Amino acid sequence: MSYQAPLNDIRFLLNDVLGVNQLHELPNYSEATPDLIDAILEEAGRVAAEVIQPTNRPGDTEGCQFHPETASVTTPTGFKEAYRQFVEGGWTALDAPVAYGGQGLPHTLKFVVDEMMCSSNLSLGMYPGLTHGAISALHEHGSDALKDTYLEKLISGEWTGTMCLTEPQCGTDLGLIRTKATPADDGSYRIEGTKIWITGGEHDLTDNIVHLVLAKLPDAPKGTKGISLFVVPKVLPETGERNPAWCGGLEHKMGIKGSATCVMNFEGAKGWLVGQPHDGMRQMFTMMNEARLMVGMQGLGLAETAFQESLGFARERLQSRSLSGPKNPDGPADPVLVHPDVRRMLMRQKVLNEGMRALALFAGQQLDLSIAHPDESVRESADDLVQILTPVVKAFLTDEGFNNANTGLQVLGGAGFTTDWPIEQLVRDGRIARIYEGTNGIQAMDLAGRKLALKNGRLIRNLFKTMTGFLSDHEDAAHREGLKHAIRTLEKATTWIGENGPSDPEQVGAAATPYLRLTALTVIAYLWSRQATTAQRLLDAGAGQTDLLKAKQTSAQYYFDKLLPEIDWLLADIRDGKASLMALEDDQWAV
Amino acid sequence: MSYQAPLNDIRFLLNDVLGVNQLHELPNYSEATPDLIDAILEEAGRVAAEVIQPTNRPGDTEGCQFHPETASVTTPTGFKEAYRQFVEGGWTALDAPVAYGGQGLPHTLKFVVDEMMCSSNLSLGMYPGLTHGAISALHEHGSDALKDTYLEKLISGEWTGTMCLTEPQCGTDLGLIRTKATPADDGSYRIEGTKIWITGGEHDLTDNIVHLVLAKLPDAPKGTKGISLFVVPKVLPETGERNPAWCGGLEHKMGIKGSATCVMNFEGAKGWLVGQPHDGMRQMFTMMNEARLMVGMQGLGLAETAFQESLGFARERLQSRSLSGPKNPDGPADPVLVHPDVRRMLMRQKVLNEGMRALALFAGQQLDLSIAHPDESVRESADDLVQILTPVVKAFLTDEGFNNANTGLQVLGGAGFTTDWPIEQLVRDGRIARIYEGTNGIQAMDLAGRKLALKNGRLIRNLFKTMTGFLSDHEDAAHREGLKHAIRTLEKATTWIGENGPSDPEQVGAAATPYLRLTALTVIAYLWSRQATTAQRLLDAGAGQTDLLKAKQTSAQYYFDKLLPEIDWLLADIRDGKASLMALEDDQWAV
Repeated sequence: MSYQAPLNDIRFLLNDVLGVNQLHELPNYSEATPDLIDAILEEAGRVAAEVIQPTNRPGDTEGCQFHPETASVTTPTGFKEAYRQFVEGGWTALDAPVAYGGQGLPHTLKFVVDEMMCSSNLSLGMYPGLTHGAISALHEHGSDALKDTYLEKLISGEWTGTMCLTEPQCGTDLGLIRTKATPADDGSYRIEGTKIWITGGEHDLTDNIVHLVLAKLPDAPKGTKGISLFVVPKVLPETGERNPAWCGGLEHKMGIKGSATCVMNFEGAKGWLVGQPHDGMRQMFTMMNEARLMVGMQGLGLAETAFQESLGFARERLQSRSLSGPKNPDGPADPVLVHPDVRRMLMRQKVLNEGMRALALFAGQQLDLSIAHPDESVRESADDLVQILTPVVKAFLTDEGFNNANTGLQVLGGAGFTTDWPIEQLVRDGRIARIYEGTNGIQAMDLAGRKLALKNGRLIRNLFKTMTGFLSDHEDAAHREGLKHAIRTLEKATTWIGENGPSDPEQVGAAATPYLRLTALTVIAYLWSRQATTAQRLLDAGAGQTDLLKAKQTSAQYYFDKLLPEIDWLLADIRDGKASLMALEDDQWAV
Repeated sequence: MSYQAPLNDIRFLLNDVLGVNQLHELPNYSEATPDLIDAILEEAGRVAAEVIQPTNRPGDTEGCQFHPETASVTTPTGFKEAYRQFVEGGWTALDAPVAYGGQGLPHTLKFVVDEMMCSSNLSLGMYPGLTHGAISALHEHGSDALKDTYLEKLISGEWTGTMCLTEPQCGTDLGLIRTKATPADDGSYRIEGTKIWITGGEHDLTDNIVHLVLAKLPDAPKGTKGISLFVVPKVLPETGERNPAWCGGLEHKMGIKGSATCVMNFEGAKGWLVGQPHDGMRQMFTMMNEARLMVGMQGLGLAETAFQESLGFARERLQSRSLSGPKNPDGPADPVLVHPDVRRMLMRQKVLNEGMRALALFAGQQLDLSIAHPDESVRESADDLVQILTPVVKAFLTDEGFNNANTGLQVLGGAGFTTDWPIEQLVRDGRIARIYEGTNGIQAMDLAGRKLALKNGRLIRNLFKTMTGFLSDHEDAAHREGLKHAIRTLEKATTWIGENGPSDPEQVGAAATPYLRLTALTVIAYLWSRQATTAQRLLDAGAGQTDLLKAKQTSAQYYFDKLLPEIDWLLADIRDGKASLMALEDDQWAV
């Protein structure tokens, strides 16, 4: 594996298309100068390629090991040292609050770094990844005492954090949680219960692990309104005592074998309430929304590595002659890159990957604006976009990240199916991203069933305004008609849901998955139009980088020609409604 | 795993829709009475569920083991005994020639049995699967002496066979083969060279293995016109001597770990020419075409098992309430089967699986007619359909079989990603089927670049005639307009290729993959129309099986509503042509 961070594409998006390099004009981000951003990109690319990447294969072959006698977990060879270097480089602190030792840089940069780390070793990236969510939840909802105790060490990477939500009887439906929290005399709580699929629940990278645990107080109302959030450290910071929060074993999984997926038994472990009682779902969503964006970057990161591998293979592998005459007449055959059907696979990877990166970084930029812009109305509309794009980034980037990794495998043919090449691992690793932090079906319901209705539909209206605003501001917008058609198609679908959903919520459920996909394809069309428009402007200005800019134009053309037309099918599916989907009676499924 | 062969669906297709139970009216198949067919289905279902299925998980966990000191391979626990029972049941002889101990039954039955075996253990099914191709090649092209020496023991399953094609420098492009065959004084040849990815190249299921090897004679013309086919037994039948055809190691793979994928070193091994010199490609295609149809059944078989698993899970797993009010009010939540988005996944699996089964059995029926019908014109048009449908069955059933297995995994959520459930193995196992026996891109080129042009386009015209003939014969055809639209769409695409391909073969290459997919969706539309029409007829006649027949009507409706509309996108892609696909220059790929 010889991953190289796609720095030129990232720079083009950040600097030329989105203008993320202007964020330093906001008071909060005054340190994020273009020079600093560029230095961070370079160094992150180096760390990903040189420090993280070499641990990826051992992580898969060895996996994590559970030692029942001590309830401990060892990570694969190299993880500890790579994590140490990652921490020492300050990468866990990048966008964390300055008051607790963070660097306070824009979140968009964190997105970029996440992509690179997931390209290099998804399993290893999970440990700091989940920690980041714990930091945010504590920072946003915790008392000063909790923040003072935990934040600095989580931000520095000295400790890691977890999200303990799932139990055997409940994943999606957290209202069914059984873990109990009983108040103790000293203001703390005793946590009792079993959590499953806890990423980084136990490991040997750090001395302490800070669990954020959903549990029910004795007087809790039924369902999700009765869930509270607790901090439960593995080792009590005050005394150094071991808290009875034990790993009961590891899951055996299709992929991400270097990520310790733990059963966690809380056996009267000491915990502290975060924020108010029964407010756990809201607090959990602070972690979850952030995790969803990060998981989207996982899908993209794996797809980028797969693309690089398959492109390299297609340039090297000589097989058959080009249909338009030999391209490598002195060799025994032409590189398979010349064959239209191989190019179809590579173009799909390239164009969708770059489109997904644009979508993610656009969402990241909106996140930064929603936090740091001095104008409240800008903050609010940016937040609208973040809210509506979060499920889209999570679901579309993991679905298509997986599909693109899988397409990369196909380019390699039989070689891709062997463990001699890294792609089959990328496919296996990426499969989970469509499931965890809310399955992609749940993302679709979040979008179509919840986000569309928020604030009387303002979120999606703001999205439309952003896209049509671009068209009004740019008479020379590339692929103008294609983008207008996409916007109209998404409007029709939105109208259909608005008309049919209120009287029959199952219609929303039936429409949700194609609607999310339609939204993603439309926003990516908007971002391809922006990229192609920018490329033309820079070409006209003779700005150099001609190959990149021309490739952007071709890629945009490919997107509008070959990929975007799926939206008509999606609209037809949505408008067809739920009838045939819901018609089978119970006895008619298997007959 | 608790696979049950889908006998009712198979019976409906064979007896009610296709009329395969009438094949006994042909002299060659007089023994294939409806009663015998039914007994075979029952027994095959029992063997698959009770004998084969229990070996599937150990096959994956243990894999095959290579022993370098003896160049031998041991198969996983249980394979030997299961293979013995499979052989003793006569399953290797089902459709093999009677003259050599076969049962001479219709090939369609073999298709059905293939599906069941691949549902139960794809890896184990590969050993007799490849043998079958060796039998056909020898039977069709071998001398009487070769047939007398090998056929009986291959058919009885006492020996197995292989296809030795691929070499390190050539997979798709067999013209680059380097393996040499040197004539010896006794009329045999000495084979020298290395073959890779040889399924069943070495194992412990049988005492002898019969390799069919592509190699070049000293005077061979360059390229594919200089390839000859040789029989190279592991043990020489005359003397019992070990032939120097050694396994040099096993591939380490993403899946089908119980299938021994061997490097084979032929070190002056004794071989015999099959048929004429330099005629190896044609003979190879006898094996290959058969293998392609079988590989299609692999995709379907895995998808069927995944569907059964995910349906079972969706019925049992309680999570959240139905959007239309509680369906399981006494339980803590409703089964996830009630949620529209879960049903979307299950309906996709059910409707596509049944459609793919119909397509495969229709192709099987045509294969039988092409061989056994007394009327030459019937034989010829049936052969046209077999030829044009072979790449379609191979590619579409493995693509969508994989996608459906993957969809089944998604229904299980996190559970599906663990090895506690069988689906992740099905996904990994099924990944190879899109690659071997010609990648699916090669299948698309075979269809669009070769089969369309054969006999001046007669093959595809016969396919159109079959479909429009059904509409003329059945004024009451269900989904008449939808099917007509699909046929017209396929006609338009065919015309476009006919108009653009001759002057620019790269246009065919660009169109190939969407064209194959469009063909598959159209033929499946034809077969869903036939199924729904048959269901209505039987319901009108009060024939019983009401649940199955109503499910068929709902499924057909779903297919025409939700899945078939993809064809408009495919046609748009085809007509858009190669421009943006071929535009990137070499330096513009990674910039």
